[in-house]
Amino acid sequence: MNQRPIITLTTDFGYQDGFTGAMKGVILSMNPAVQFVDVSHGVPRQDLFAGAMVVRGACPYFPPHAIHLIVIDPGVGTSRKAMIAVTDRGRYVLPDNGLLTLLERFTPIREAWSIENPDFCLPTISNTFHGRDIFAPTAAHLSLGRPPEHAGPAITNWQRLEIPQCRKVDKGWEGQVIYGDLYGNLFCNFEIEAMKELKPDCVLRFEGGEVRGLKAAYGDVASGEALLTFGSSGFLEIAINGGDARQQFGLQPGDGVMLSPN
Amino acid sequence: MNQRPIITLTTDFGYQDGFTGAMKGVILSMNPAVQFVDVSHGVPRQDLFAGAMVVRGACPYFPPHAIHLIVIDPGVGTSRKAMIAVTDRGRYVLPDNGLLTLLERFTPIREAWSIENPDFCLPTISNTFHGRDIFAPTAAHLSLGRPPEHAGPAITNWQRLEIPQCRKVDKGWEGQVIYGDLYGNLFCNFEIEAMKELKPDCVLRFEGGEVRGLKAAYGDVASGEALLTFGSSGFLEIAINGGDARQQFGLQPGDGVMLSPN
Amino acid sequence: MNQRPIITLTTDFGYQDGFTGAMKGVILSMNPAVQFVDVSHGVPRQDLFAGAMVVRGACPYFPPHAIHLIVIDPGVGTSRKAMIAVTDRGRYVLPDNGLLTLLERFTPIREAWSIENPDFCLPTISNTFHGRDIFAPTAAHLSLGRPPEHAGPAITNWQRLEIPQCRKVDKGWEGQVIYGDLYGNLFCNFEIEAMKELKPDCVLRFEGGEVRGLKAAYGDVASGEALLTFGSSGFLEIAINGGDARQQFGLQPGDGVMLSPN
Repeated sequence: MNQRPIITLTTDFGYQDGFTGAMKGVILSMNPAVQFVDVSHGVPRQDLFAGAMVVRGACPYFPPHAIHLIVIDPGVGTSRKAMIAVTDRGRYVLPDNGLLTLLERFTPIREAWSIENPDFCLPTISNTFHGRDIFAPTAAHLSLGRPPEHAGPAITNWQRLEIPQCRKVDKGWEGQVIYGDLYGNLFCNFEIEAMKELKPDCVLRFEGGEVRGLKAAYGDVASGEALLTFGSSGFLEIAINGGDARQQFGLQPGDGVMLSPN
Repeated sequence: MNQRPIITLTTDFGYQDGFTGAMKGVILSMNPAVQFVDVSHGVPRQDLFAGAMVVRGACPYFPPHAIHLIVIDPGVGTSRKAMIAVTDRGRYVLPDNGLLTLLERFTPIREAWSIENPDFCLPTISNTFHGRDIFAPTAAHLSLGRPPEHAGPAITNWQRLEIPQCRKVDKGWEGQVIYGDLYGNLFCNFEIEAMKELKPDCVLRFEGGEVRGLKAAYGDVASGEALLTFGSSGFLEIAINGGDARQQFGLQPGDGVMLSPN
Repeated sequence: MNQRPIITLTTDFGYQDGFTGAMKGVILSMNPAVQFVDVSHGVPRQDLFAGAMVVRGACPYFPPHAIHLIVIDPGVGTSRKAMIAVTDRGRYVLPDNGLLTLLERFTPIREAWSIENPDFCLPTISNTFHGRDIFAPTAAHLSLGRPPEHAGPAITNWQRLEIPQCRKVDKGWEGQVIYGDLYGNLFCNFEIEAMKELKPDCVLRFEGGEVRGLKAAYGDVASGEALLTFGSSGFLEIAINGGDARQQFGLQPGDGVMLSPN
């Protein structure tokens, strides 16, 4: 492998503390040739579904030799496993807590390994910062060409998040808001593949309001107007051209919505 | 060109979602040799003037072979052009919406091209994320040595932002606050080149207050005291030594100010 | 030195403006081979103790040839010195204002130099942005192999922060909260080396509440429960498993606490 090794980082560590810096330092001390790419350190704290959205939205665009280090880890210090997952779109180093649930729909996990070999970890493992003590050195080992099966035993029953599924009902589909991005766009659990017959004059209703009209682009409605669109995530989005749908409609992840043909 | 290619990124995508990660993945999949430099992903949402300030303040310091990818794009999905601009201080890939207005005063745009060649874009172009689907692959093509004129027809009438100009009046100059940075420093539309005769005892008046005294450095007044200074941007700044002028004076971009000799 | 030069960056510049971009541009214009690692640009504004915590927590993990550029600089434009500090764990370029106080306990400063040679700076030095005009070019010079003693005269009396020390009293130790991280964990000035005899049933009392029980990991208490732990910083932390201790207890840096055996 003659390519420069790439390690991407996705965490909920925020941007105030030096946590991500410590992880990068550990990696560069083991493999100074690594190129880092920060995907996000602003995943909402301990929000596994948001982490899964970010991973799905960014990681598959990288070259297949990229290694993706993902640390959103509410279970740090407990018995949850640390794992390596191998896909056709890169290798992933992360806690076994469901962060690949959305990615798996796009590119399956071909094999996975539990990180148990002490040689893949720092000599001292804290109980609060496995990002630095386990995940970072494991990613460095992979970047040096060490095979993932050296990390520990194979696992096949990794965790998956329960994604609430939309339901066909008489008048249309019952679903819910599952994510809100920084622009205030709201993502609902209607996926484009399952909604191919959806017509441009469909309507989404929710407590206190409705949005009518499936559009191709935000700019297809006047400034300040609301619209429905299948954005780059593949989920149906509620958006406002030049505005903030989350704020305007007061909707949050978990709130119910009803999608009807008209 | 034997130098390692540099691509800088300036966006209003924030730090929660994986949008910038997806753009970097697209680029590394086309040219794994690229070195990224994040300039800012915290430009206030869809604020073109703030974006123009950030670009002007950072991009000219890079080596001339750098490529600057700038995505603050309220018009995504509409008929606004996507463009490449060539200057003596680097090449810029961005929507044609005025983001280079302040940079142009410092280093002129020598030529510009509309990005219309599908070969410069991803095979599928979403209507909501041209950063990933058009701008990122175009920057990657440039980094591989492909000439910008292959992207599409030349353009000469690119957009510029209307910058409010200060006006000479009887008692001095009428102007306004045009930007506030994260420190709470307020930038006004008085530029150092036009204000060479300004005396140290000048005074800036505004609704509810005034600041007296042009200083060379924040530390030239006592802690907690206000001052006027020409900071590194070239615009007159209202600042408080160790404090936050925006908060203290309650001023916002757009608010009027009056600058007088005394 | 055949290694790729590494420069890490730690600042309080935030993520909105292009300040860090300008510094990186200056460096790449002098040495295009540099690899940057952002440690944090979200250090609370002008908070030297928080900066010292971030530096201590991240920089020692990097390879010894790394250069650490640190700009939290409330004294910019005043007579405070600009300095280079040499340790066994990397070289540091920063204002002489105490930012290495915590690092020094871990790895001593072997020698230090005042940056006074104009050749180490940009031709024009602003009074407000020494990060770009002095610290960045100095870091670039070091990365090119120029010896630190060329920067200016040696200094031996660099600044140190006053860290409040805990006090042994009749009932235990009096201390205080000294830092809160983004997770809401609160750090107190009880250090693990001095507290080896601390028992699992110890209790920390403060205005309006108490936390009982020294644990090895957050996950050792039920979700939503509070605990005490020596985290990766070596300071005693007040934490809530899956929660935010800062918010729940209303404590701030500076607030007094009392640690007792029971």
